Amino acid sequence: MSQSTPVFLEEYLKLHAADLADRLQRLDADEARALLRQLPTEKAAAALAETEDERIPDLLAAFDAVQLAKILEHIAPADAADLLQHLSPGRRREALGKLPGEIADGLRALLRYPEDSAGGVMSNRLIALREEMTVEEVRELLRERAQEERTEDIAYLYVTNQEQRLVGIVSLRDLVFRRAERSMGEILNRDVKFLRVTDDQEELARKFEHYHYLGLPVVDVDGRLVGVVRASDALDVARKEATEDMQLMVGLSGEERAQTPWQQSIRWRLPWLYVNLATAFLAAFVVGLFEDTIAHWTALAIFLPIVAGQGGNAGMQTLTVIIRDLALGEIAPGDGRRALVKEITLGLLNGLAIGLVVGLIGWWWKGSMMLGLVAGGAMVLNQLAAAASGVLIPLGLKSLRLDPALASSIFLTTVTDVAGFFFFLGLATMGLKWFGM
Amino acid sequence: MSQSTPVFLEEYLKLHAADLADRLQRLDADEARALLRQLPTEKAAAALAETEDERIPDLLAAFDAVQLAKILEHIAPADAADLLQHLSPGRRREALGKLPGEIADGLRALLRYPEDSAGGVMSNRLIALREEMTVEEVRELLRERAQEERTEDIAYLYVTNQEQRLVGIVSLRDLVFRRAERSMGEILNRDVKFLRVTDDQEELARKFEHYHYLGLPVVDVDGRLVGVVRASDALDVARKEATEDMQLMVGLSGEERAQTPWQQSIRWRLPWLYVNLATAFLAAFVVGLFEDTIAHWTALAIFLPIVAGQGGNAGMQTLTVIIRDLALGEIAPGDGRRALVKEITLGLLNGLAIGLVVGLIGWWWKGSMMLGLVAGGAMVLNQLAAAASGVLIPLGLKSLRLDPALASSIFLTTVTDVAGFFFFLGLATMGLKWFGM
Repeated sequence: MSQSTPVFLEEYLKLHAADLADRLQRLDADEARALLRQLPTEKAAAALAETEDERIPDLLAAFDAVQLAKILEHIAPADAADLLQHLSPGRRREALGKLPGEIADGLRALLRYPEDSAGGVMSNRLIALREEMTVEEVRELLRERAQEERTEDIAYLYVTNQEQRLVGIVSLRDLVFRRAERSMGEILNRDVKFLRVTDDQEELARKFEHYHYLGLPVVDVDGRLVGVVRASDALDVARKEATEDMQLMVGLSGEERAQTPWQQSIRWRLPWLYVNLATAFLAAFVVGLFEDTIAHWTALAIFLPIVAGQGGNAGMQTLTVIIRDLALGEIAPGDGRRALVKEITLGLLNGLAIGLVVGLIGWWWKGSMMLGLVAGGAMVLNQLAAAASGVLIPLGLKSLRLDPALASSIFLTTVTDVAGFFFFLGLATMGLKWFGM
Repeated sequence: MSQSTPVFLEEYLKLHAADLADRLQRLDADEARALLRQLPTEKAAAALAETEDERIPDLLAAFDAVQLAKILEHIAPADAADLLQHLSPGRRREALGKLPGEIADGLRALLRYPEDSAGGVMSNRLIALREEMTVEEVRELLRERAQEERTEDIAYLYVTNQEQRLVGIVSLRDLVFRRAERSMGEILNRDVKFLRVTDDQEELARKFEHYHYLGLPVVDVDGRLVGVVRASDALDVARKEATEDMQLMVGLSGEERAQTPWQQSIRWRLPWLYVNLATAFLAAFVVGLFEDTIAHWTALAIFLPIVAGQGGNAGMQTLTVIIRDLALGEIAPGDGRRALVKEITLGLLNGLAIGLVVGLIGWWWKGSMMLGLVAGGAMVLNQLAAAASGVLIPLGLKSLRLDPALASSIFLTTVTDVAGFFFFLGLATMGLKWFGM
């Protein structure tokens, strides 16, 4: 390090790679690149592997193809493939060209899988064993491998047959505990749970959550073992995937973050706001149908947003429970009807409980029992509409093979606004016509 | 098994414990208990460990204290403590009394920690090593332990000093790879990340996501090693914890599921619906202030819900991004101001883009330029209010040490309704007064 090295470089060197990545993300692009160039390759590589996708293109600009190749060699292949995904095709080819052939081939294989599939998350740096190998032979093999390459934290080893198909699993613990002369075939567990390369993030998260393993093997379409996903990598995926729904629900991209530049945010958000606007005009059109009624009875304008808003809120409760249960895999195909019955029951009871209060307030505030009856009645009906749509919208989106969360709150409030306005103003019009004011 | 054993029992026996638990949860309470009694203790215990909390009290009713004690012995202590938490204090004491003293003491220690803390999630069945032990001695120790008790999948071993304080970590891999005569002191890594027993689920999930380890040790207030959390257990916690926010946002309990009985659901949901109703009347009161204006100009009633609803929608987008980033730990303390500036910018631009369209439609539909100006202007102002409250509500809740998601959508729509109605009807009243219609 030269004399001009800033004092704080030593501080950075002491940090865990994940913490270093955090710091890099908080610096200006120029400062971050300058810092990266000063770091030893191993440290820079580890920090880049932990960096959020969005900042990667900026940071990689600090390096030429040879430096990039060195960085790629120092991190796990899954992380290296992620970095490569953020380079232009030209630079990617260049960097791969500077890598030893075997490593480059491995990375090219990983790049073929979508980033959000098991194939995209898995590491292909795995050790596959044969059934006839003994505990002692495996220990020896691991010792050799440990010297020739950086291996990852592993908890299990996988056993394959001659066609490279996965046949069983041996825990690293067994290698410590079992006697040296036992063969893999004797100690392996054949009931091995696995992922397919094409499994998406949701499936991946679900299998990890369901089975509680520290790692799951990944097989290709022919059942050949091609990689492994560790629970600690799945955790990342699971948290992002699970929380994505809350953004999709309100018409946001699952990828948006507080740090996303506003130019990108507006491109993601504005289209859904326009969709919402169109549905709002649909609801406004319903109000327009009853303009004469409102002109006769302006107190209706006060209660209009209450009936619609309360329906929207109760509907959001139902919608959110259903979407979360779908995401966590707690609703099976047959459960839709049961959920609908429960939510309709709740809608009726909530509707009566709220409708009664709204009706009494309407009567007391404006001195009109008719207003109370109309507001209370519309509230009950709209709570039923809210409950039904809260269940049916996500299940409907799912049956269309869309994400059940996709813009669902926008669709839901369309229903509760249109239905709320229609029930309330419709009842009011009937009341005016039949009973006068 | 007796002759009357149903045919399908054999099918159940072949299932993975997690899949068996799924089946149990889909049976009637009576059928489930009958099935549990027929299963071998080990299988029943494994299935109960995987069962959702809600069904546990029902299922445990199948067993007497002696049977319960046997079940508790067959599962990981953390799972056993979870089961015990669902028994009445009397039955709990009875079951603990039937267990060997050492195991009962371990469980009593675990029961002292809240279920949603690192202490509540951790396993206390861990192997702590001393620095002076050699690789060979540790291998021997593990072999002995493997025979006397069920050990869990482990990836790391922890090294403690004489005061039982955590001093370093050794990976299981090292035990396979390193030479037999090396001591733990020579091969351990002193830079060990850890959890504190009091860390809550959110902190736990964040540390796992940040550092990507397969396991983290847990220390008590004095720095003594008391347990270990595996990444695969953290994954469960992380998914539930991360998605809890989407329910809290809309005024739901984080624990509600589609399967929750309606009697419980209504007790959780109705109070927040009443809070929402109170805030809706606050907004209605604002509308009531301008009843004369509406009586003069009923077209306002049509645009009223559009201005408010569009503000609510845009505000929900901001709110959701902020809450998700807070949950995933991607917003640091200093980032609040930056997020506010970004969202206000977006609010202004979205407001102009939507306000223009609303204004033009208002002008064209009702032939009144004034209506267009009022609607468009109110839309811009309300988008700014939405953006500001979308950032400030979660940060405000956080600074009050509440969950940033808690009922935040109810608070947000209160702001966007009140502000939207006030801006729109206020501008309309000014327009009527100064320019006529």
